Amino acid sequence: MKIGIIGSGNVAYHLVKMLKETQAVQLYSRNAENGLQVAENFSISFENDSQNLIENNDLIILAVSDDAIEKIAQEIDFADTIITHTSGIKSMHLLKSTSSNYGSFYPLQTFTKNRAVDYQTVPFLIDANNEQTRNTLTNLAKKISSKVSHVQDEKRSRLHLAAVLVNNFSNHLFALAQDYCTENKLDFDLIRPLILETAQKVMTQNPSEIQTGPAKRNDKKTIEQHLSWIEDENLTELYQLFTKSIQQKNR
Amino acid sequence: MKIGIIGSGNVAYHLVKMLKETQAVQLYSRNAENGLQVAENFSISFENDSQNLIENNDLIILAVSDDAIEKIAQEIDFADTIITHTSGIKSMHLLKSTSSNYGSFYPLQTFTKNRAVDYQTVPFLIDANNEQTRNTLTNLAKKISSKVSHVQDEKRSRLHLAAVLVNNFSNHLFALAQDYCTENKLDFDLIRPLILETAQKVMTQNPSEIQTGPAKRNDKKTIEQHLSWIEDENLTELYQLFTKSIQQKNR
Repeated sequence: MKIGIIGSGNVAYHLVKMLKETQAVQLYSRNAENGLQVAENFSISFENDSQNLIENNDLIILAVSDDAIEKIAQEIDFADTIITHTSGIKSMHLLKSTSSNYGSFYPLQTFTKNRAVDYQTVPFLIDANNEQTRNTLTNLAKKISSKVSHVQDEKRSRLHLAAVLVNNFSNHLFALAQDYCTENKLDFDLIRPLILETAQKVMTQNPSEIQTGPAKRNDKKTIEQHLSWIEDENLTELYQLFTKSIQQKNR
Repeated sequence: MKIGIIGSGNVAYHLVKMLKETQAVQLYSRNAENGLQVAENFSISFENDSQNLIENNDLIILAVSDDAIEKIAQEIDFADTIITHTSGIKSMHLLKSTSSNYGSFYPLQTFTKNRAVDYQTVPFLIDANNEQTRNTLTNLAKKISSKVSHVQDEKRSRLHLAAVLVNNFSNHLFALAQDYCTENKLDFDLIRPLILETAQKVMTQNPSEIQTGPAKRNDKKTIEQHLSWIEDENLTELYQLFTKSIQQKNR
């Protein structure tokens, strides 16, 4: 199957890397400079004309930012070519007007250029407006990963919220912890192994069953001591709110 | 060197496991049943009498809960025997009245019985009331880990706050995400690989430099959509506060 990828960001970069081993892959990007760079990096062909991309390929993957999906869908006519986006939150039905075969092809993972990911372990969430398209997308995902599931449009969007909690929010907690360390001349590297082990534990255990800490055991003295050390107002509020939430969940 | 460990919890369990390869280790616990179980598990001797433990050993490690440290220090006379606790937050000076040689021996990691940890990568934070004791504790820690540092008493307590943020609070975020998944009949296993990759990224990158998500790009539509799906009041407040904090940090 010949696959056209639109985009040049982190997801487009990794999709090219995932797919080029087993498929013919072409790339198109409105940002031609970035697009060319990705194409050259993986020695695949860069297509300057979006209409050519559609005519030359059986399936188009729209690996662009959430905001760009609707715009591109309106600008480009995909006719019968299978078109899918890679968004966590956006409905696949945004693509309804642009092709009779559309779907969603969502790799539920965080991607950065130049950082290797074990694709076999990446959950792919697939849906489509008809069974044939869904099968095509599912079979494609199975060439990349062993964790492919059919997840309906709205369920995928709802899962995206959980992804925001465990990725965006926990990463921000790490950032606040690093700021606090810097302000107090503490070495954040001493904290890093704990971040990894905390995550590794959750691979095999349920987080609610392994909760520990001053909030859990209602250690008021430590909680007060901690709060006296925090200068960032948002972190103070977060500390209080986490303490309340942990206590209510565990009482 | 002969080492006596007091305690039978997760830290005591792992200290026995860490130390018994290279040292003579004895265990004492006020909870004799649990203590015996740990001792039998690692084929070391269990000592019923705390005074015998002190007389038989060169160094006593108090691997007990924070609240128990002061109590045990008051009840037992350690004379000149080196005594150290393993607490993140408590001052080593709680041990001042009980021995002329005291310190802190803090493995900055989360431990669970029966879960293997690569001890070589565990940061050990060491301090003591005199140089000789500090050297003894440092040399002992170096037999276990390659990451041993002298971190002064108050600095260690302050670091413990950062540990609470990245361990207790991120684990609670994971627990809330799992609750949300359960309520919405979503498969939390689809989220687990993202938790691990988020942590792994922070091993080599600074979290503030890799922040992404709707809050970071001020995607109001997604933020509103997410908030409409959350039913837990504390999670609603946390979502709003994280969004505000991320936006203020990244503007």
